[in-house]
Amino acid sequence: MQTGVPLNEACNLQVRKLEISDKSKGFVELLQQLTVCDAISDEDFQKQFQELSSLGDDHVICVIEDTSCGKIVATGSVFIEKKFIRNCGKVGHIEDVVVDRDSRGMQLGKKVLSFLTDHARSVGCYKVILDCRNENKAFYEKCGFKQKEIWMVKYFI
Amino acid sequence: MQTGVPLNEACNLQVRKLEISDKSKGFVELLQQLTVCDAISDEDFQKQFQELSSLGDDHVICVIEDTSCGKIVATGSVFIEKKFIRNCGKVGHIEDVVVDRDSRGMQLGKKVLSFLTDHARSVGCYKVILDCRNENKAFYEKCGFKQKEIWMVKYFI
Repeated sequence: MQTGVPLNEACNLQVRKLEISDKSKGFVELLQQLTVCDAISDEDFQKQFQELSSLGDDHVICVIEDTSCGKIVATGSVFIEKKFIRNCGKVGHIEDVVVDRDSRGMQLGKKVLSFLTDHARSVGCYKVILDCRNENKAFYEKCGFKQKEIWMVKYFI
Repeated sequence: MQTGVPLNEACNLQVRKLEISDKSKGFVELLQQLTVCDAISDEDFQKQFQELSSLGDDHVICVIEDTSCGKIVATGSVFIEKKFIRNCGKVGHIEDVVVDRDSRGMQLGKKVLSFLTDHARSVGCYKVILDCRNENKAFYEKCGFKQKEIWMVKYFI
């Protein structure tokens, strides 16, 4: 007889695009687990949300909401770059993937990646790329990614 | 007494944004030195040029023309990603940098990088990033970049 219910069945998870009301569901606090992300005023959030929404399919932010508690527990984004190479091809760039520290081990990161990758494929990308820390390489490999080469950066501030 | 004129003084180089007439100046053939890039019809080129131009400052393609022969000898692009993190910050993504094989050693790559980096800074980016092969790492370091970590990819085709 099975005792206990795995966490991922106990939760009521909804995988979907970011909505403006997600600010009140911990979306910004989740991003703060990823990197520097100060509090954002409602006005600034709304402005940036509209700016990004205006890009339509060329910029999509995926979130996973635990609807049992109304909390955003995972997110990631993809934007679509249009090129002249590869027959005027498109590339999906995946950015800012993070899973809430209390919700790890439930494959939420993999679900976010699938959502973003499926989107990129559906709009005709020939590949998706992302930059990550060495320590996360194994996770992305489990999601079907391979290391290509290296990621370089130049900071202005 | 100095004998001979360095190549970069012999040429008449113009660093500027891509123009639609650059297709007839070898822009596509230059991209073919970078990667797979089939011939593009005038119609498709025009369509993609307009699509990218409509992004305004959020997508810029730099070219260097050798005006003595009307040939595009270097190029690179940058697109601006808008985020919620870092106070709704912006990141410049540099892509598709290539210098014509007959025009190397003239610091044209560095000029392209400067143009793209200056653009990213001018529109308020807090950093620029790019992915490259290990063999090009030293070049980008000379241009002020540092290796961050790794670049992952998933191909659909």
